[in-house]
Amino acid sequence: MSLNVLYAGRPDMWDTYAPLLARACAEAGLDVTLSNSMPPEDVDYMIFATNGLVSDFTPYTRTKAVLSLWAGVETIVTNTTLTQPLTRMVDVGLAQGMSEWVAGHALRHHLGTDLDVVNPTHEWTPHVPPLAADRQVAILGMGALGQACAKTLRAIGFPVIGWSRTQKTVPDVECLSGSEGLDEALSRAQIVVTLLPFTAETENTLNARTLSLLPRGAFIINPGRGPLIDDEALLAALDSGQIGHATLDVFRVEPLPADHPYWQHPNVTVTPHIAADTRPRTAAQAIAQNIRRSENGEPLLHLVDRQLGY
Amino acid sequence: MSLNVLYAGRPDMWDTYAPLLARACAEAGLDVTLSNSMPPEDVDYMIFATNGLVSDFTPYTRTKAVLSLWAGVETIVTNTTLTQPLTRMVDVGLAQGMSEWVAGHALRHHLGTDLDVVNPTHEWTPHVPPLAADRQVAILGMGALGQACAKTLRAIGFPVIGWSRTQKTVPDVECLSGSEGLDEALSRAQIVVTLLPFTAETENTLNARTLSLLPRGAFIINPGRGPLIDDEALLAALDSGQIGHATLDVFRVEPLPADHPYWQHPNVTVTPHIAADTRPRTAAQAIAQNIRRSENGEPLLHLVDRQLGY
Repeated sequence: MSLNVLYAGRPDMWDTYAPLLARACAEAGLDVTLSNSMPPEDVDYMIFATNGLVSDFTPYTRTKAVLSLWAGVETIVTNTTLTQPLTRMVDVGLAQGMSEWVAGHALRHHLGTDLDVVNPTHEWTPHVPPLAADRQVAILGMGALGQACAKTLRAIGFPVIGWSRTQKTVPDVECLSGSEGLDEALSRAQIVVTLLPFTAETENTLNARTLSLLPRGAFIINPGRGPLIDDEALLAALDSGQIGHATLDVFRVEPLPADHPYWQHPNVTVTPHIAADTRPRTAAQAIAQNIRRSENGEPLLHLVDRQLGY
Repeated sequence: MSLNVLYAGRPDMWDTYAPLLARACAEAGLDVTLSNSMPPEDVDYMIFATNGLVSDFTPYTRTKAVLSLWAGVETIVTNTTLTQPLTRMVDVGLAQGMSEWVAGHALRHHLGTDLDVVNPTHEWTPHVPPLAADRQVAILGMGALGQACAKTLRAIGFPVIGWSRTQKTVPDVECLSGSEGLDEALSRAQIVVTLLPFTAETENTLNARTLSLLPRGAFIINPGRGPLIDDEALLAALDSGQIGHATLDVFRVEPLPADHPYWQHPNVTVTPHIAADTRPRTAAQAIAQNIRRSENGEPLLHLVDRQLGY
């Protein structure tokens, strides 16, 4: 019997996803009817994105799982009509893309490349950085994305502290946890990468107090979620020189409003939410594998815990 | 009997090198008298840099080896007064620093970070690059520096072609050699890193013909030597769009003259010969190890072949 799979992602991405999902399902041995439009009561599985069209999940009475195309699910986890199991996207392409973006900006700050990229007076002033081995990085959040970044940064030569809510063990990474662990990580880090999920607990993880723990002139790289940072506190720390530069990919309001002070600040680089984009080919494979698991009675991968919010 | 070791490197670096060399020699079990000034006829070993003070090697009649602090030796290899064995610097710190600089600029071009770093009109225009796995890199020159860069670029995710004069075998790198190999490497590379030594054979390796082989919009990264590139041909290829951007760390004349067109070109980034700097601590260890080898009757490491010029 064919499974009915509804695509409820970004409408303009349907043409991209349709053939990739069809192929991935066939490769997973699944017999599916795939459409971007079907009666709610007929839907067995829903492929979902926050920027898609579904916001009321009540009529999807037989839907066995809602499979998010996004890694961050904070905007649907609070939707009370969503009673079906929800999975978040863990895409190998997304983790790989994130690690490349984080490595690129970590090296940019480490090497001081902006001095040469933006050099209107054509100064020839050699500036040789320390080796990466002498530049401590801390990654806040050691899920799939944080671990992928840690691995790449270690391979380049950076020592990496990985901080997470619960203690983890990751090869070649100094793992810390809890609030004392956070203070220690920040007191040593010259580059901080924020990759925590956004929850009530993680909001404003970087605030006036925690920013003050960092060595003077530290760099902040935020490819995680905008609310992980107290914007007012960061701007004050940038103005005082406590923070040397911040590269921010995510914001409380996106696109970042034209009058936001981040745009104007000489020590802030705004990137337009590009650090990690789900790659359709690998994401379609992840979706198909999860449908296959569900149909075989295996537990869904990356099931969201509604209590924790991720 | 104590060995007389003359430091003939940059005078302003003597205070840095003196204690590091003393420690490295002691650790190598060598009894040395180290000075930045001694009668030429008393010198057993000379630590040398092109920007130091010695240019006539004739009076150094008992000197057993001239140990260069620089990796590139093209400016002394043609000095006919230099009849003593000459070694070039292979410093783990230099190779590591080079790999960080090359990785940083490869990722910068790959990710298109300049779009966000230099964004005067505050555009919010998402630009998601392909994964590094889909961005072919070619490294021209697979000596110690080229191989260190290849390893880091592979760890980040880039596929790497390594081209060298003679065929090499390097794990996880597609090795090509000879003139046909060069043409094939260039015809596929979206990012080209030039790390060849400068010799009569390698001058203008990138010229009008070879630049035309590259896929349109390719990036050039030159941390090797200025004359590896035909400057006129590169400027023409940048103007036509055949080359997307060039990041150049080395030039035929340094500092790069203020009126040089590279300074003005919107698609050229000039960096002031900082890609790889010998790191004094690790360089001192390399020097001490080579003196120890020589005293033990072992062959010198990294002995320069005067015929080849490196």
